[in-house]
Amino acid sequence: MKVAFIGLGNMGEPIARNLLAAGHEVIAYNRTRSRAEELSKGGARITASAGEAAAQAEVAMTMLADDSAVEQVVFGSGGVLDALSPGAVHLSLSTISVDFAERLTAAHAQRGQQYISAPVFGRPGAAAESKLFVVAAGAKSAVERCQPLFDAIGQRTFVVGEQPSAANVVKVAGNFMVACVIEGLGEAVALARKHGIQASAFVEMMTESIFPAPVYKIYGQHIADENFEPAGFRLALGLKDVRLALAAAEKAAVPMPFASVLRDRALSGMARGMADLDWSSMARLAAEAAGLEPRKKK
Amino acid sequence: MKVAFIGLGNMGEPIARNLLAAGHEVIAYNRTRSRAEELSKGGARITASAGEAAAQAEVAMTMLADDSAVEQVVFGSGGVLDALSPGAVHLSLSTISVDFAERLTAAHAQRGQQYISAPVFGRPGAAAESKLFVVAAGAKSAVERCQPLFDAIGQRTFVVGEQPSAANVVKVAGNFMVACVIEGLGEAVALARKHGIQASAFVEMMTESIFPAPVYKIYGQHIADENFEPAGFRLALGLKDVRLALAAAEKAAVPMPFASVLRDRALSGMARGMADLDWSSMARLAAEAAGLEPRKKK
Amino acid sequence: MKVAFIGLGNMGEPIARNLLAAGHEVIAYNRTRSRAEELSKGGARITASAGEAAAQAEVAMTMLADDSAVEQVVFGSGGVLDALSPGAVHLSLSTISVDFAERLTAAHAQRGQQYISAPVFGRPGAAAESKLFVVAAGAKSAVERCQPLFDAIGQRTFVVGEQPSAANVVKVAGNFMVACVIEGLGEAVALARKHGIQASAFVEMMTESIFPAPVYKIYGQHIADENFEPAGFRLALGLKDVRLALAAAEKAAVPMPFASVLRDRALSGMARGMADLDWSSMARLAAEAAGLEPRKKK
Amino acid sequence: MKVAFIGLGNMGEPIARNLLAAGHEVIAYNRTRSRAEELSKGGARITASAGEAAAQAEVAMTMLADDSAVEQVVFGSGGVLDALSPGAVHLSLSTISVDFAERLTAAHAQRGQQYISAPVFGRPGAAAESKLFVVAAGAKSAVERCQPLFDAIGQRTFVVGEQPSAANVVKVAGNFMVACVIEGLGEAVALARKHGIQASAFVEMMTESIFPAPVYKIYGQHIADENFEPAGFRLALGLKDVRLALAAAEKAAVPMPFASVLRDRALSGMARGMADLDWSSMARLAAEAAGLEPRKKK
Repeated sequence: MKVAFIGLGNMGEPIARNLLAAGHEVIAYNRTRSRAEELSKGGARITASAGEAAAQAEVAMTMLADDSAVEQVVFGSGGVLDALSPGAVHLSLSTISVDFAERLTAAHAQRGQQYISAPVFGRPGAAAESKLFVVAAGAKSAVERCQPLFDAIGQRTFVVGEQPSAANVVKVAGNFMVACVIEGLGEAVALARKHGIQASAFVEMMTESIFPAPVYKIYGQHIADENFEPAGFRLALGLKDVRLALAAAEKAAVPMPFASVLRDRALSGMARGMADLDWSSMARLAAEAAGLEPRKKK
Repeated sequence: MKVAFIGLGNMGEPIARNLLAAGHEVIAYNRTRSRAEELSKGGARITASAGEAAAQAEVAMTMLADDSAVEQVVFGSGGVLDALSPGAVHLSLSTISVDFAERLTAAHAQRGQQYISAPVFGRPGAAAESKLFVVAAGAKSAVERCQPLFDAIGQRTFVVGEQPSAANVVKVAGNFMVACVIEGLGEAVALARKHGIQASAFVEMMTESIFPAPVYKIYGQHIADENFEPAGFRLALGLKDVRLALAAAEKAAVPMPFASVLRDRALSGMARGMADLDWSSMARLAAEAAGLEPRKKK
Repeated sequence: MKVAFIGLGNMGEPIARNLLAAGHEVIAYNRTRSRAEELSKGGARITASAGEAAAQAEVAMTMLADDSAVEQVVFGSGGVLDALSPGAVHLSLSTISVDFAERLTAAHAQRGQQYISAPVFGRPGAAAESKLFVVAAGAKSAVERCQPLFDAIGQRTFVVGEQPSAANVVKVAGNFMVACVIEGLGEAVALARKHGIQASAFVEMMTESIFPAPVYKIYGQHIADENFEPAGFRLALGLKDVRLALAAAEKAAVPMPFASVLRDRALSGMARGMADLDWSSMARLAAEAAGLEPRKKK
Repeated sequence: MKVAFIGLGNMGEPIARNLLAAGHEVIAYNRTRSRAEELSKGGARITASAGEAAAQAEVAMTMLADDSAVEQVVFGSGGVLDALSPGAVHLSLSTISVDFAERLTAAHAQRGQQYISAPVFGRPGAAAESKLFVVAAGAKSAVERCQPLFDAIGQRTFVVGEQPSAANVVKVAGNFMVACVIEGLGEAVALARKHGIQASAFVEMMTESIFPAPVYKIYGQHIADENFEPAGFRLALGLKDVRLALAAAEKAAVPMPFASVLRDRALSGMARGMADLDWSSMARLAAEAAGLEPRKKK
């Protein structure tokens, strides 16, 4: 397929590579052009604007940081909305708000274009190995048409229904659950440490018994080592995701006390200069609240 | 080994059976004698009191509901403390408080007996298949001596150190983390449902992607089906475990906001007549707070 | 002074009356004209649009429900921004967001107009008796010029500084503290009731001893009587105010765990059909969580 | 009346003085005798044990730090329980747990003695001026008999009923509400400060408008000045009181999310070496969580 790919960050770049590897034709755009150049060696065509890429594609995929970044490339002048052909698909992989997904749905429908929300679970490593989990929602025909793309980038696709924003709800709910793992580990590790138990021993016991999932192993390791740099996922983005969950919750009138705790935790991190640490550093705040000193760096 | 086994409930009975199967000599006591009778068919000797069982054993194992039940059989007249030979071991599998574990440690030491805390992770099914995870702490020699018993009942033993109560800290911290899974799922499912996504579909997406651990599958299923009876683990016991975590936290001055949320949730369940439902019914309260009606029973 | 007054609701109408009574010339506008007609009997001139009123005034006062209502009359075509003379003042009494106050400040400055935030504390009864507390912030000269207006409507004016949004911060922080009173009373009354103490007796003891402030008496009475209709201040507006506090907190990276609890409480009320009850009905949710049945209506 | 008075601390000493001033005969006991000596100059007789004082009295009043202190003087050998005459009254002014009040009630009843819980609201200054608020519960005849004593020490007596522990419920619920004031102020002040508003200006606006109660003025001042030493009421005792509220709540199955936040806050203070600061220092933790540095001491 002829695919426009917009946003070649930590996640977008390996995803675009896998599309190329699967034989798709990729026309790529990135704000910082140098990043796109590398992809061009792999066979991608590079354009000077998002719209230029979208104009030539059956499917325009966006993988950007947040609502505002997507808004710029889609609704900006010469953007995806203006450029995309009638019948073509905008497929958004980004973690965006439910409200904004609804706005995209309506805007594309008005132009006779199709819109699919297809956020993904997985970190850059999983993206590189085509091991992402894709959560897709949108018109059935459009989702089916994009299946080869999903197959090229992920290990499994879950189709949530025909309302695109439903996929975004699943994504923010899932990220909320990941944040719960971090906070739960953070509190439990603080408890263990103050009772004289080594953090790494505690985490090992948990992850080799009842919590064998990778998410526990990865974050448990970070927390036990107090190793929050470089960030796999910045706290500032973590706060954004918690905020998306709370916004979706407010829209539907759902009290989420755990999400509220997470928000306060992340805000405290922001206030204390931790925006660029990995979001598992929320556990450091749990430890500090218990009077534990941060580990000395060697 | 010659083992006294006290407490033949949902967990104790299959554990005792596995000790017999591994060739150990089991002298069993249960308050309700009828339960013990069944075990006697499997080769166990049944006694009329806990002390009588302990008097003859190298190791006396207790598997009881809470501090007060253990207190009765240990400190009561004619109890384990009085009966156990010097040098013999009291091995407590129960989920008890950190404070009480310290009291047991001191009391047994005074009599020249040894005390090991060895709480287990796993539900009755895992107990039946010798698949428990054992977390043991106590004097090194005593723990080593009991290793064949651990091997008979569990798939793996984690040794935490020489201070018995450390094992209890690990156990209550682990149960706290399980309770966090329930609450996290409860809030996320409520969010999904109010956005029109089926609970079972949401749970499937989560457990077949980033949360493949059994604890998510088991509780996710209960929550999606709103199936809280019969209880695998009663809410009343769940509240007890949260309380143990909070008590351990208070002893060591550790704020645990997630644990506080869990306590309030469980208390609300108790107030609303849910004491005997499975503790995953905390998710029903999350749903009700969001205005969702309980599912009609067929 | 020649004053435009926009928004003649429960609060605006008595305030406008007091301006007339103090001898000011009032040109009034209200979306629902019938409400304005009554004021015209008191001497006010009624206009067909907000802009028409503002065009003739030295000071244009707005007293509207929320950001969006103010946005419409100010930024809408033919609105206050277009109509107000250079040098004239827009004085906003409404409870609006900190962000929106900053936007108003900038927009008016660009036109050579002045902007003052002057939200008020007090309920309709206090407004009728000129007993409001005014919290004002803006350019010193402008605030001084408006002092006669403040004197006409309130018992005391607090000047916070020259940055208008500071007054809005004070207002949302104050409303947050009122909401804390409601939740604190709600939890304490639930505790007392479940220990067999009459709600009204408990509230009386509190308000006639250490909590003699009117806010405790008024809300304590509502809570003891479970009397939430008609609403003095609707739960939906209460949630809006909590949201404004949380937004201001997020902007400045301030964790506010009490505000988070309030948000969850209010959201649950919205989900359970209580949007139009008085916001003290949050106490009903505290009681229900403790298993207390709502009082039967006679 | 002939009154035994046990416990001459910050509160007990001025109370005992007022009993003397009102013409009652006071037989006093204090663990640290030197404190009692001062009172003897005022006319009190000093004894060497609590029991000795109680043996001669119609009413034995206890004013001690916590359950355990009361337990010692009452249930200890040669204690109040053994010494008090049948028909005489034990009147407990201390802030004790609901459970312990029930135990006292039963123990005294068994001896044919009477027991009244009569905790007081007010700080040492109020005690000195006989301005306490007394909350009394117990057998009607006993309460009536003690009325002259209440009149001597307080400005008003509230009678809650015949079950003594009800008075303790009211006391812990009231102290919980005071703690809510501290936390509410703490969060609001942090919000104001981070928006550039002076803490003292904010507190003044609140306490001179909608929150004129002394409890807001006193704690608001401490918080604005970041003046937490010497402690009027130590954080360690504040945590104890929150714990009493939570224990009473757990007994009656009442979720109290605000109390949970307070517990976590106070625990964090304990962990960070603040046990001996005034409990209004919880506000410092709210400020630190928002990244605000503690004010430099001059």
